[in-house]
Amino acid sequence: METETGRVEAFSDGVFAIIITILVLELKVPEETGSDFWHGVREQWPHYAAYVVSFLIIGVMWVNHHTIFGHIKRVDRPLLFLNLLVLMVVSVIPYTTNVLAEHLMEEGGSANAAAVLYSLLTVAYALAFLAFWWYVTRVGHLFHDQVDKAGARATRVRFGLGAIAYPLTVVLAFVSAPLTLVAHFLIALYYAANQIPIPLVVEEERLETASDLRK
Amino acid sequence: METETGRVEAFSDGVFAIIITILVLELKVPEETGSDFWHGVREQWPHYAAYVVSFLIIGVMWVNHHTIFGHIKRVDRPLLFLNLLVLMVVSVIPYTTNVLAEHLMEEGGSANAAAVLYSLLTVAYALAFLAFWWYVTRVGHLFHDQVDKAGARATRVRFGLGAIAYPLTVVLAFVSAPLTLVAHFLIALYYAANQIPIPLVVEEERLETASDLRK
Amino acid sequence: METETGRVEAFSDGVFAIIITILVLELKVPEETGSDFWHGVREQWPHYAAYVVSFLIIGVMWVNHHTIFGHIKRVDRPLLFLNLLVLMVVSVIPYTTNVLAEHLMEEGGSANAAAVLYSLLTVAYALAFLAFWWYVTRVGHLFHDQVDKAGARATRVRFGLGAIAYPLTVVLAFVSAPLTLVAHFLIALYYAANQIPIPLVVEEERLETASDLRK
Amino acid sequence: METETGRVEAFSDGVFAIIITILVLELKVPEETGSDFWHGVREQWPHYAAYVVSFLIIGVMWVNHHTIFGHIKRVDRPLLFLNLLVLMVVSVIPYTTNVLAEHLMEEGGSANAAAVLYSLLTVAYALAFLAFWWYVTRVGHLFHDQVDKAGARATRVRFGLGAIAYPLTVVLAFVSAPLTLVAHFLIALYYAANQIPIPLVVEEERLETASDLRK
Repeated sequence: METETGRVEAFSDGVFAIIITILVLELKVPEETGSDFWHGVREQWPHYAAYVVSFLIIGVMWVNHHTIFGHIKRVDRPLLFLNLLVLMVVSVIPYTTNVLAEHLMEEGGSANAAAVLYSLLTVAYALAFLAFWWYVTRVGHLFHDQVDKAGARATRVRFGLGAIAYPLTVVLAFVSAPLTLVAHFLIALYYAANQIPIPLVVEEERLETASDLRK
Repeated sequence: METETGRVEAFSDGVFAIIITILVLELKVPEETGSDFWHGVREQWPHYAAYVVSFLIIGVMWVNHHTIFGHIKRVDRPLLFLNLLVLMVVSVIPYTTNVLAEHLMEEGGSANAAAVLYSLLTVAYALAFLAFWWYVTRVGHLFHDQVDKAGARATRVRFGLGAIAYPLTVVLAFVSAPLTLVAHFLIALYYAANQIPIPLVVEEERLETASDLRK
Repeated sequence: METETGRVEAFSDGVFAIIITILVLELKVPEETGSDFWHGVREQWPHYAAYVVSFLIIGVMWVNHHTIFGHIKRVDRPLLFLNLLVLMVVSVIPYTTNVLAEHLMEEGGSANAAAVLYSLLTVAYALAFLAFWWYVTRVGHLFHDQVDKAGARATRVRFGLGAIAYPLTVVLAFVSAPLTLVAHFLIALYYAANQIPIPLVVEEERLETASDLRK
Repeated sequence: METETGRVEAFSDGVFAIIITILVLELKVPEETGSDFWHGVREQWPHYAAYVVSFLIIGVMWVNHHTIFGHIKRVDRPLLFLNLLVLMVVSVIPYTTNVLAEHLMEEGGSANAAAVLYSLLTVAYALAFLAFWWYVTRVGHLFHDQVDKAGARATRVRFGLGAIAYPLTVVLAFVSAPLTLVAHFLIALYYAANQIPIPLVVEEERLETASDLRK
């Protein structure tokens, strides 16, 4: 049975909101007292940096999730489970963030290994998102009427090409863990500015009318 | 007084979203440095496996909760409390997940005992869900008009039969804790694919119209 | 400026959902292995008991919050802050729950003291709720048209009388901490079954029509 | 593409609700037993005080966020990211709250340093909020039709002037950490009572009609 998108969006919003917020639980209180306090704060910088990068990554994913669902009219059972798969992978981000922050400044390979783990998870959620987008565009039966289904299907190539950036960060992780974190920051910025434009068969005005009616 | 389902769904979505997300808080950062890092990651596998199984279980329960509420028009006070009972039991899953993961590879019976605890909780939420579904279908006064009330009531037998799988996992837990985890994974997959189909007296098209009007 | 109740309900639902769910974070994994495992589980019983009682308390408060907002049409700034006060006090419940569970079986007065703390917080949220309900019923300008404003105002006496149970649990806490927990369980059951019935000037049917139109 | 505000508000509500609720996780259970219990509770007072102040700060910010979005009709991509920036900074509050509470009663400068950190974050979110409000009022293309765009733009001066209070608390932090906490409490109370009134070109009645229609 196909149903409306309302509750899936609400559930997904909840999961995204919680994941992005529990990132802060990984920031450790500096225990140094007196004049050493600021020294203790500075030593936390890998956690602060990882917090900012992961917050941006999750935020950008939420924006894109939001954009895609703005073009979907109904959900069916496979979509619910593909959405659940995306959420399952994304929910692990606070963990890999913490692992990376804890090991970022270590020597002897564990920093690189932690960066590999962090990057592998980004590959995983890129694949999950790709599967989700593949299913949505394959038939296009869940789209709003105004969406150009053939055009939406065509975005899959570009979407897939963009996803190549993630496996490359796994390679970069063997070179430098801090550079890997910078790379993920830049990729998130790129996806913040460059959404996959979903073409419409009618002018935007009509879609807005339609989505107003839907509510 | 009977009221609409909106806020109950929102509250339940919130609880499901939080439960499914705090599962990640149980994943421990490996403390090993240098070349031992991956060894430390591998040692966490019971936590990773338990994370995936419990995420799937909670996700499937959310999908079924979502499906049932898609057929309910109004809520009354008993339903609110039966729903609360379901949520109370489901909310314990992150705890039993953690207990099972911590003890999964131990010898001397504690792994089996932890698996028994995990399985007993699944029996508890199967019973809570059954009570919820029993109440909804008993009179059927809360259903949408399009729902075939007699047909919905008839699903209770199949629903109850399916629930027998849970007590069987309690027995299996005495044999092997890892096998019990696998069994719960398979049961969740089964419920993902096999919902209780709630029959409608009219064609699906009309229900959709009705639920559009409701919003 | 008066606005609709939608976002206040969504925010409050979120807070209630999180408070009720993070209760589970206080359950400790038993560290005993082998045949001592169940002994370790049994020792956690104060945490399990406190979990059930506090889950019920928060759930009942959510149901009553839900019921009151079902009769409110608009919110103004004072109401937003009175609602925030209620949420601030309720949010402390996971803390006092944990304090009580940790000290429940101790001798030498700390169990009683923890029960006093737990009970004092229930007095605090009863007062906050009372202030909230007092403000809503004082003028009644935020109610739906169908609500009998004079009748709603009259419920304040009964509401206030019921609240006397909370200070009594503070006294009981000096006698026995476990009994205090039982008392709170019974009070929650009482409020689950006995809502303050808000009288309507018209038959219920019309209110439902009105709330359907509002959506 | 511009879309409706519904999901942004839901996501933001979720984040605000979680931030305000996880503050309670920082309250520590007193470990003292017997007659020392209350002594242990009293020693937690910096955590209790910091909890109340931060709860109020986040609550007031939510109310103001709620008020602003009540006047916005559509969101575009820059607004989504400015909103995300606000949320990113606000999400750090539980961390700085905990840092301040841990060090508040220490001697030798770390209390002041922690208060500086706490105050610097308030400067950061004042700036983020200012950027958000600047963008919304610059063109005013996202406002409801009833909003007086020139009047809304004029509020920016007052908004900016009010924000001067935050850097002043950074200075105050060098003098006294407890006084800084008191100052933040007073500033939050000030913003609770003094919203930036957004002028309307029509009487309030019509805006309400419009927002009713929008739903």
